[in-house]
Amino acid sequence: MNPYTIFADIVAGRAPASKVYEDEDVLAFMDIRPVTPGHLLVIPKTPARSLSELDPELGGKLFRVGQQLAAALRASEVGCDGVNFFLADGVTAGQEVFHVHLHVIPRTPGDGFGLRARPTHPARADLDYLAGSIRGALGRAGGKD
Amino acid sequence: MNPYTIFADIVAGRAPASKVYEDEDVLAFMDIRPVTPGHLLVIPKTPARSLSELDPELGGKLFRVGQQLAAALRASEVGCDGVNFFLADGVTAGQEVFHVHLHVIPRTPGDGFGLRARPTHPARADLDYLAGSIRGALGRAGGKD
Repeated sequence: MNPYTIFADIVAGRAPASKVYEDEDVLAFMDIRPVTPGHLLVIPKTPARSLSELDPELGGKLFRVGQQLAAALRASEVGCDGVNFFLADGVTAGQEVFHVHLHVIPRTPGDGFGLRARPTHPARADLDYLAGSIRGALGRAGGKD
Repeated sequence: MNPYTIFADIVAGRAPASKVYEDEDVLAFMDIRPVTPGHLLVIPKTPARSLSELDPELGGKLFRVGQQLAAALRASEVGCDGVNFFLADGVTAGQEVFHVHLHVIPRTPGDGFGLRARPTHPARADLDYLAGSIRGALGRAGGKD
């Protein structure tokens, strides 16, 4: 897979971006195709195509910067009263740019953004069965934070 | 606002949950109204109604545990090939339980889950204007990770 993405050029300053936050690890800027006004992307400066490639410390930092941005959006002229975080990992999940990015989406009533979702109500036994399978996979991976 | 939520009872072991991960800070369990099979919630054990109340260190840990769960879901019988993270902060953003929770949603082709979104294409000047306002709000908050 071609590792190039436009985000690498934005990090390097070779492509334009309307930046809102930058430190040694993380950059946040306006999505150029916002789903609501003020829609932001938070990315690690070091490229990682997927959550599995992303240093967990950097992952945690994306979330913490997202928290700060959620507060800033509320205090800014964007004037939202709610915020969504969204992240797509993998083509099937809707990922289009293969450099991990956390969407921070300001919300106002009637803004037209939302989820398409049909929740189901499985039996507890079915939930327990899948939970056991996921715990097993975590254990095989040696999953510890 | 009544600070009680069902998640406090799940953390305390007073309400049932199909748990997949637990440590001293964080608990992950099956959503009882999954939008896809294997839909998980990751919560801090210490209650926080909103991102603004959530200790940033705990916020970062939610994301890191989410990364582990994304890998485990792929390796489990859930058999997904993509994962979405979603978080709703505030009623307007769709938050229903006022204890911060990160949704980890396994994805398979044709699963029916997705976003309702109408991206727009604002002029760079408009993006720059809002970016300036958000940077200003971050600066007033003393925003530093």
